[in-house]
Amino acid sequence: MRPGAALTATQGAQAIAAGSLSSLQWVEDCLARIGEREPSVQAWHFLDPQHALEQARARDATRARGNALGPLHGVPVGVKDIIDTADMPTENGTVLHAGRRPQHDAAVVARLRAAGAVILGKTVTTECATYAPGKTRNPHDPTRTPGGSSSGSAAAVAAGMVPLALGTQTNASIVRPAAFCGVYGFKPSHGLIPRSGILALSRSLDTVGLFARGLDDIALLAETLIGFDATDPDAQTRARLPFVQTLRTEAPAAPRLAWVKTPVWARTDAPSREAFSQLCAQLGGACEEVIVHGVTTAAWDCHRTIMEAEMAANLVAEWEHGRERLSPSLQEQLARGREIRAFDYLQALTQVPRLIARVSDVLARFDAILTPATCGTAPPIDSTGDPAFGTLWTLCGLPAISLPLLRGADSLPLGLQLVGARGGDARLLQSARWLEERLHTA
Amino acid sequence: MRPGAALTATQGAQAIAAGSLSSLQWVEDCLARIGEREPSVQAWHFLDPQHALEQARARDATRARGNALGPLHGVPVGVKDIIDTADMPTENGTVLHAGRRPQHDAAVVARLRAAGAVILGKTVTTECATYAPGKTRNPHDPTRTPGGSSSGSAAAVAAGMVPLALGTQTNASIVRPAAFCGVYGFKPSHGLIPRSGILALSRSLDTVGLFARGLDDIALLAETLIGFDATDPDAQTRARLPFVQTLRTEAPAAPRLAWVKTPVWARTDAPSREAFSQLCAQLGGACEEVIVHGVTTAAWDCHRTIMEAEMAANLVAEWEHGRERLSPSLQEQLARGREIRAFDYLQALTQVPRLIARVSDVLARFDAILTPATCGTAPPIDSTGDPAFGTLWTLCGLPAISLPLLRGADSLPLGLQLVGARGGDARLLQSARWLEERLHTA
Repeated sequence: MRPGAALTATQGAQAIAAGSLSSLQWVEDCLARIGEREPSVQAWHFLDPQHALEQARARDATRARGNALGPLHGVPVGVKDIIDTADMPTENGTVLHAGRRPQHDAAVVARLRAAGAVILGKTVTTECATYAPGKTRNPHDPTRTPGGSSSGSAAAVAAGMVPLALGTQTNASIVRPAAFCGVYGFKPSHGLIPRSGILALSRSLDTVGLFARGLDDIALLAETLIGFDATDPDAQTRARLPFVQTLRTEAPAAPRLAWVKTPVWARTDAPSREAFSQLCAQLGGACEEVIVHGVTTAAWDCHRTIMEAEMAANLVAEWEHGRERLSPSLQEQLARGREIRAFDYLQALTQVPRLIARVSDVLARFDAILTPATCGTAPPIDSTGDPAFGTLWTLCGLPAISLPLLRGADSLPLGLQLVGARGGDARLLQSARWLEERLHTA
Repeated sequence: MRPGAALTATQGAQAIAAGSLSSLQWVEDCLARIGEREPSVQAWHFLDPQHALEQARARDATRARGNALGPLHGVPVGVKDIIDTADMPTENGTVLHAGRRPQHDAAVVARLRAAGAVILGKTVTTECATYAPGKTRNPHDPTRTPGGSSSGSAAAVAAGMVPLALGTQTNASIVRPAAFCGVYGFKPSHGLIPRSGILALSRSLDTVGLFARGLDDIALLAETLIGFDATDPDAQTRARLPFVQTLRTEAPAAPRLAWVKTPVWARTDAPSREAFSQLCAQLGGACEEVIVHGVTTAAWDCHRTIMEAEMAANLVAEWEHGRERLSPSLQEQLARGREIRAFDYLQALTQVPRLIARVSDVLARFDAILTPATCGTAPPIDSTGDPAFGTLWTLCGLPAISLPLLRGADSLPLGLQLVGARGGDARLLQSARWLEERLHTA
């Protein structure tokens, strides 16, 4: 592996700023790594090496002119192929959108470019960011799924093809592929990153998320992307969150973690239970098992009702003009979604503030919730795995991060998920940093 | 009529600040006026004269101590009985809520009290702010409706019982009673006034509105009530709108008015058409007839779908525990609402930004839209009148004001409605001031 492929974004951006690395060299190293690993991993839906190299040369030329550099100047980033790019196709993982060329960059892509990033290419998504798998395979074992729906982004980062990638989560599409691929996957609070220019499935649930190989990189990318945008109706107006600075600052006290088994805990496999039980023992007094009262399996039903009703409304053109070319599972989802009563949909939405209140009771007493990211390591390639461990937190719009700190009995990555209070995204990363250091030094 | 009953809020607040009037005297004059007119008008659902007088005495005592005074110090205000008051019952116009005593003031009531207002009493609403009339009669003719659903608020202001009153609009419940009763009725842009503590019918449509006998009073009250509140999920974060100052400032140029006949224009009666045709002729070049392309009767269907679906979800307890004590019309509405598909509801919501875009095309070229507030003067007491002239503007969340500047052939008030751009509330009042002066001097 050439040196550039091992760099984190933070290291590489510093090296570019210092003049000890060119963006061109870094992108060439990433392309070389892709050349080695792509035949097995298949993370990319669109990649034009010449266009990536041109962007890198332009970034280097900007630096050579002595211009001020953005925080991601020259850093290659992969972008999930449901996120619009004006200079590359965006095909949303469906043949119905084959050849689609957006006119404009999505808001997040515009922010990446403004920060100096090189958009390396478009990563594979499942069909319309739902359940039908794309071509990507798990970099740790090609017979296993990388998880979905942000399959290519997680796999590309895990395989060392790119230091950073963007994805989206409507159920578990960040935390699950991050867990299966053994990278960091961060889903911020709902409403912090604008979604304009991204395939809409569910306004209530869709959230942009990030993949990286370290917490510093997660903080750097989050700080670049988070911010108000009036074109997203759920965008929150709030002061800029200083992620990078917060992560450099030690927490005033060791965080207290609430070990929460939700109603889907029963789905975890035996090696996961063993790994989590050891983890909690290792954390000792810093971690306390907590029951979240009032959270029943009804929360998962609410999520499905909201997601399927909103998906049916958003994918109406696909249904009307080509549903026979959608996967059977997506056709069934849309057919169900079209029959949901507004009454049941709105009743499900009214459950959300009640669930947030229940979880907030815990987060008032603890710094973060510690919980599995998946029910085990990556299953075989024919599915993208059970999303149930992301559902509750996505429904509540809470920030969640999957940390690659555990291994399963099969020695594949096992994700550990930390969940924070809504808007407490920077504090969540601080707790994650503490946990990571605690486990490394233990 | 005693002098206090004729005062505007602006005049009275100035007199109190100057020491030439006491709040007690003003409230006594209002109570005397209520004594004269209430047997015929029946505007009040709850009125405790002693409690009103106590509040007035407390306001006078505050002033006597030399404390700083709020903008509504000592001003009596009527509050629609779907708006919670911690010191008075709030029964929402239904026997199902008889004896209901809220624990907390609604956000708008808290703002009124913080501004120094005296909450005079609770005004009659139709059943759950929908269509079944309450006991209130039109102050100009007791055989006619005052309009609904903010019946008591409009009638109380029109009858000189109180200078200011609060209402709400989900379809036409501010502009219609204002038009029928011959007062100013202002529905600001959706999201400017917080709705916490108010009976929720439809989050997408519910808007707090104001009644007064002059534009200065509308500006004074709007400036007091408008402002962000995190407890209303649709609250807009924006700088304070200086209504009072804007209204004192002459517009830089004479506003240009777009005379818009929507698809419901055909419902207007012949005297209304004649009055509007004369008005437009009188305005000459300041007013131009404009067709709003893309606005079809589908907008009215969208409104009904959204309103009835959201009402069914919000009034679920009333349906489950006492629907037989609701009016047949409300029972039918709720039964329809419960059967609406989420798909149709969400499709209706997606029409809204498109309609706003159509109307915004006009409002980019004109200062305001001029259009009828109702299809004619107040009809007989057995209905609250046709709401169709409020529907489109409520659906689009645009600010609208009904101005009592016309009379029908029966010499009853006929409302003229001005509609502004979303967020252009202060400019709308400025256009209204210009129009009022133009018609008075013509």
